[in-house]
Amino acid sequence: MPLITIDVIRGHDEDYLVRLLDAIHDAVVEAFDVPFTDRYQILHQHEPFELRALDTGLGYTRTQNLTIIKVTSKPRPTEAKQRLYEKITTYLGDRLEISGEDVIVSITENTSADWSFGQGRAQFLTGELPDDTQNAQDKVAEK
Amino acid sequence: MPLITIDVIRGHDEDYLVRLLDAIHDAVVEAFDVPFTDRYQILHQHEPFELRALDTGLGYTRTQNLTIIKVTSKPRPTEAKQRLYEKITTYLGDRLEISGEDVIVSITENTSADWSFGQGRAQFLTGELPDDTQNAQDKVAEK
Amino acid sequence: MPLITIDVIRGHDEDYLVRLLDAIHDAVVEAFDVPFTDRYQILHQHEPFELRALDTGLGYTRTQNLTIIKVTSKPRPTEAKQRLYEKITTYLGDRLEISGEDVIVSITENTSADWSFGQGRAQFLTGELPDDTQNAQDKVAEK
Repeated sequence: MPLITIDVIRGHDEDYLVRLLDAIHDAVVEAFDVPFTDRYQILHQHEPFELRALDTGLGYTRTQNLTIIKVTSKPRPTEAKQRLYEKITTYLGDRLEISGEDVIVSITENTSADWSFGQGRAQFLTGELPDDTQNAQDKVAEK
Repeated sequence: MPLITIDVIRGHDEDYLVRLLDAIHDAVVEAFDVPFTDRYQILHQHEPFELRALDTGLGYTRTQNLTIIKVTSKPRPTEAKQRLYEKITTYLGDRLEISGEDVIVSITENTSADWSFGQGRAQFLTGELPDDTQNAQDKVAEK
Repeated sequence: MPLITIDVIRGHDEDYLVRLLDAIHDAVVEAFDVPFTDRYQILHQHEPFELRALDTGLGYTRTQNLTIIKVTSKPRPTEAKQRLYEKITTYLGDRLEISGEDVIVSITENTSADWSFGQGRAQFLTGELPDDTQNAQDKVAEK
C-alpha cells in the first residue's frame, strides 16, 4: 500500500529507471513486510535546476544521481522505517551504483480510511484487504 | 480546500484531461460538501514506465487509463471519504469510460493552520474562510 | 528539513525559476529558523490546463504566475507557519513581481522518524541532526 513518488534528474535511460523503481520496490516489500503486488510508484524526471538538495550540514555531496523518495503509508514502526532507509540505499548502491549520499527519503502517514485501490471502495474498511494498522501501532506502543 | 494531485499516463488529449479534472472536481464538491470554487488541482502526465501500479492481490487490471489521485485535505469523516471514492469512480466511468479498476485514491490530512490560499494569509485562522474542522471531527467522534 | 514541492505553469525561463526557488528557500530558512543548507526543493512545470486553481470565494485572480507550494515538515508552531506564508508572498512579490493572489501553500506534517537525508540513516534518530520536535510541540502547547 505505500504510494511512492520518486523524483530524479533527467538523463538516465529507461532501463536504469526501471531498475531503480524495482530496487525501491524490493526494499519496500522487505522493510514493510507487504505483498510483492503491493506496488504503487510514480516517477518524475526533472531538469537539473528543478531539483535542489543541500545537506543540512551532514557533509553529503549530491550528484546527477540524486533520488528523492516520498512515501505515503499507513503507520509503520520506527524500526520498519529505518529498515526501509537502509534497504533502499543498499539496493540502489548495489544495483545502480547510486551513492548513499544521493538518496533522500521522506515518509508521510495516513490511515486505513484514506486508501482506495480501485472500484471506488476503501479496501481496508471493507475487509477486502487486511487492516493491520492497529497491530503496527501496538508494536510502536510496546517500545 | 482539498488540494488534488492527479497522475496519468501520457497519450490522452487535452479535452479528455480537462474532462477528467472536471469529473474529479465534481466528485470532491459533492462528497466533501465544499463550494464549487474550492478547486485546486495539479495534473502530471507520465511515460508508461513511470507509473507502476499492481493490485495487492485484489484482482484488478490496470490499463493506460490508470489514474492515481492524491488528496490533501483537512480531516473528513470516513463516510465522506468513502463517498469520494465512489463518486470519483462513478464520474470517471460514466463520462470518460475509465474502469473502476484504474482508479486509485490516497488521502493525507492536515489542519487549519496548514493552508494559505493567497496573499500570505492563513484564511482558516483569520476567519476569511469558515473553519469547520472541529465539526468534522465531532462527526467522526459521534460514531 | 522541510521538503518543498513547487508547481508552476511552463513559460518562465530558468533564471526566473531559479530565483523563485531561491526566494522560497529564503522564506523557509527565516520563517522556520532552519540552517541555510536545509534546502530540499522539487519543481514541476505544467501546461496551463494542468494546473487549476479557483479561489474558494476569496476574490483572488490566478494568472500564469500561479505558484502552488507543498511543504512536508516536522511539526511547526502556528506562528511559524503564518510567518512562512507571509515571507514567501513578500519575497515572490518583491523579487519576481508575483502577485500574492497567485501564491498557494499547503503544509503536511510528519515526525522525526520519517526522514532520511542520505546514507540510509534516520538522522533525527541517530543524533546526527538535532531533534527539536518536542520543543516545537511544547511551544504550541504553551499557547
